[in-house]
Amino acid sequence: MGAMQSSEFDALGQAARAAGRQLAASSTAARNQALTELAALLRAPQPQLVEANQADLAAAQARGLEAPLVDRLRLSPAILETLAQGCEQIAALPDPVGAMTNLQRRPSGIQVGQMRVPLGVFGMVFESRPNVTIEAASLAIKSGNACILRGGSEALQSNLALGALVQRALAAAGLPAAAVQLVPSADRAAVGWMCTATEHLDLLIPRGGKSLIERIAAEARVPVLKHLDGNCHCYVDAQADLDMALTVVDNAKTQKVSPCNATESLLVHRSVAAAFLPRLAALWAPKRVRFHACPSSLPLIPGAEPATEADWATEYLDYRISVKLVDSLDEAIAHINRYGSHHTDAILTQHHGHAMRFLREVDSASVMVNASTRFADGFEYGLGAEIGISTDRLHARGPVGLEGLTTYKWVVLGEGQVRG
Amino acid sequence: MGAMQSSEFDALGQAARAAGRQLAASSTAARNQALTELAALLRAPQPQLVEANQADLAAAQARGLEAPLVDRLRLSPAILETLAQGCEQIAALPDPVGAMTNLQRRPSGIQVGQMRVPLGVFGMVFESRPNVTIEAASLAIKSGNACILRGGSEALQSNLALGALVQRALAAAGLPAAAVQLVPSADRAAVGWMCTATEHLDLLIPRGGKSLIERIAAEARVPVLKHLDGNCHCYVDAQADLDMALTVVDNAKTQKVSPCNATESLLVHRSVAAAFLPRLAALWAPKRVRFHACPSSLPLIPGAEPATEADWATEYLDYRISVKLVDSLDEAIAHINRYGSHHTDAILTQHHGHAMRFLREVDSASVMVNASTRFADGFEYGLGAEIGISTDRLHARGPVGLEGLTTYKWVVLGEGQVRG
Repeated sequence: MGAMQSSEFDALGQAARAAGRQLAASSTAARNQALTELAALLRAPQPQLVEANQADLAAAQARGLEAPLVDRLRLSPAILETLAQGCEQIAALPDPVGAMTNLQRRPSGIQVGQMRVPLGVFGMVFESRPNVTIEAASLAIKSGNACILRGGSEALQSNLALGALVQRALAAAGLPAAAVQLVPSADRAAVGWMCTATEHLDLLIPRGGKSLIERIAAEARVPVLKHLDGNCHCYVDAQADLDMALTVVDNAKTQKVSPCNATESLLVHRSVAAAFLPRLAALWAPKRVRFHACPSSLPLIPGAEPATEADWATEYLDYRISVKLVDSLDEAIAHINRYGSHHTDAILTQHHGHAMRFLREVDSASVMVNASTRFADGFEYGLGAEIGISTDRLHARGPVGLEGLTTYKWVVLGEGQVRG
Repeated sequence: MGAMQSSEFDALGQAARAAGRQLAASSTAARNQALTELAALLRAPQPQLVEANQADLAAAQARGLEAPLVDRLRLSPAILETLAQGCEQIAALPDPVGAMTNLQRRPSGIQVGQMRVPLGVFGMVFESRPNVTIEAASLAIKSGNACILRGGSEALQSNLALGALVQRALAAAGLPAAAVQLVPSADRAAVGWMCTATEHLDLLIPRGGKSLIERIAAEARVPVLKHLDGNCHCYVDAQADLDMALTVVDNAKTQKVSPCNATESLLVHRSVAAAFLPRLAALWAPKRVRFHACPSSLPLIPGAEPATEADWATEYLDYRISVKLVDSLDEAIAHINRYGSHHTDAILTQHHGHAMRFLREVDSASVMVNASTRFADGFEYGLGAEIGISTDRLHARGPVGLEGLTTYKWVVLGEGQVRG
C-alpha cells in the first residue's frame, strides 16, 4: 500500500458518488438497520480487528510513541461498547432527511416547498483515534451521505478493520458498501486529493490539531466545515446579579479548561468591578487561576499580572483568564467583536434591553444571557449528535448536528401549470 | 483613478465591516427609510447622474461598442423609475433578519434557539448594466449587510454617480454611508482582491457571463454564490397525461429560450413516444424548434437530427432540444443525474409513486411534478427578491432570496445555569 495513483482516488470518488445516490434513495429503516448491525458487530468478537489494533499498537510502541498517544489508539472492549452505544443512539434519532416543508400555493397555482436531502459525499481527515472511523461512518449512514475517510497513519490497520465492519453492516442492511470508504494507505497525497476533489466531495471535515485544520482550510477548494479558535468571553454588566455572575463565570472558566467553549476573557463593567473581582479572585485562589488584568482591574485582583495586547486575543485552554474593565455595554460589544473568535460569548445581566442588544450585536456563533459558555455544544443544544463546531458563517454555524450534513432542494407540485 | 494600492482595498474592507455592524444593529424602519429615500432620489432630477451616464455612453460610442451594448448602459427615465419601484418593493418585504425562532427549553434549564442575522459584508462583481448597482445596494440595505460593488469599466461613471445617491439615502436615514461602497476604479486588481479578501468579505456574488463566473469561482477563497449551467430536463413518464405534457413541455422550452431554467433536454418513456413526439413535432414546426434525437426517437420526429453524446450535456439557450427515449423511470433519473447540471428538472406523470421518487432521487436544486421548469425563479417561488440562482449545494440552493444574504446565530437564554 504505497503511493496512490490519481486514478485510484477518482475510483474512490466515483464509487462514493454512486453509493451516495443509493443511500439518498434508501429508506430510513434500512439506514437504521445498518447502524444496529454495526453496533452488534462492534460487540461481537472480531479477531481481525483485535489483530489489526495490536499491530498498530506494536508499531507505535516500536516507534517510541509516548504512552498517552499509544493509549489513544487502543480499541478496548469498553471503547468498542461505547462506540456500539453511539451507533444505537444515532439510529434512534429522527431521520434528518426526506421531510417536505413550507409547501405554499403560489398565485400561479403551483405549490412550492423544500425537501431536506443529504449533501451527497463528505470527506473526513482525522488524526490518531480510530474511534472517529465509527463516529463518522454512523453520522454518514444516518444522514444518507456517502463518506471517504482518511485517518492517521498510526491507526491505519485499526481503521481499515473498523471500515470492514462498517461495510459488512451496510451490506447486511442492503445498502452499498462503498457508502463508507477508507483511504487504503497512509499516503499524504490523499489529503491533497481530498482538498481539491470538488467533483467528488461536497464537504470536507478536518478533525484534529489546529495546524491540520489551518493547512486544510488554506489548501481546500472543497467547502470545509471547520473550527479554529474559541476565544470566548463573559461580560459582567452593571446590572448583573453578582452571585449568579460568580457561579456562571466560575463554571465557564474552570468546569473544564481545555474545551473550545471555555471562557478565556472576562469583561466587567467598571461600576461593579470592586464588588465582583475580589470575590472571584478569592473563589479561584485555591484553583490557582492566573489573571492577566488591564491596568484598572489589576489593583482589584491579588496576584494578577498585567495583561498585554496579545492577551485579548489569546485562547489559553488553561487556568488563565484575561480581565478588562469597560465603561459601557457598547465598549464590551466592540471589544468582543474585535478580539473574539466569533465562537461563544455570554452576558451576565438582569437588564432586559442590554441582554437583547448583546444577543443582536455580538457577532458570534453562540450568544448567551446568564448562562455558561460551556453550554455551546451539540448535545446541550439538543442536536442529538455533533459533527463538529463551525466558526464559519455560511451553511452551518456553531455546533453542527446531522442537519449540517444535509441541504435542501426546492420541490414544485403542479397540475399542468405553465408560466405566462 | 489608476491602480489601487492594497492599503486602499483594506480601507474599503474595514469601512465596510464597521458599517455592516452598524447596519446589523439598525432598526427595520431605518433600513426601509433608506430604501424609500433612494427611490425618491432616483425619481428626482439628478444632473450629476445624467452627466456621468452621458460620459459613459459617449466613451462607449467612441470606443465603437455595438449599439445594443451601448444601450444597456443607458439610464433612461423609464429605467430609473423601474429601479425606484424596485427599491419600494424591497422596502415593503418583511425584514429577513432579527427573528428568534425554535426556542426550546433543554433539560439543563437553558432555552436554546436561533436568530437570523445578516452575513456581514458581501461583494458583487458585475458587468455592464449600471442597474445592478441599485439592485445590489437595495438588497444589501434591506438584509442589513454592507456591500462592496465592482461594476464594469464601461459603466464606471454611472455606477459612481448611482453609488453617491445610495450613500445620500443611507445618510438621510441615519445609516452609515460606507454600508454601500463602489470600487472607485476600473482596475482589474479589484476583482483579485475581492476573490481573496476572506477577512473583509463573507460572500462574493459574480453577475455576468459564464467566463467571468468561472474565473471567479476558480480563483476565489471567499465563498461564492454562483450560477453556472442550466441544462434542465422534462421527463414524460409512461403514466403522463399527454395533453398536459404537451402544454408543459411547450412552455418549458419555448416560452422563452434564453433563461437558465428553459428546458434543454426531453426524456420520453418508450411506451408513449409514438403518441407524444409526433404531436410535439407538429406543435413546434411553426416555431422552428430543432430536435437532436436519439436513434429510437429519430424516426418519430420529422426533420430531427441525430443527437451526439455532447448534446445530452448541452445548454442550447436556443430553439433546440435534445430528445432521448428511456425504458424506465430509473433510466430517466440516472440520465438526468449524469448529464444534467443539477439546476431544474421536471417529471410529467399522473403516477404518484413515480412523482415522489423523481422528487427524491433527482439530485437538482429544483425538482418539479407537472409544472414548467420556467417556474424556477425567486419571484415565482415567492421570495420577493432574487439575489441569483445557485447551482451549489451549501448555504443556498436554487433561487436565492434575501435569506441567502443572512445566516443564523445560536441564542441561549439562561437564568444562571451552569454545566454539570
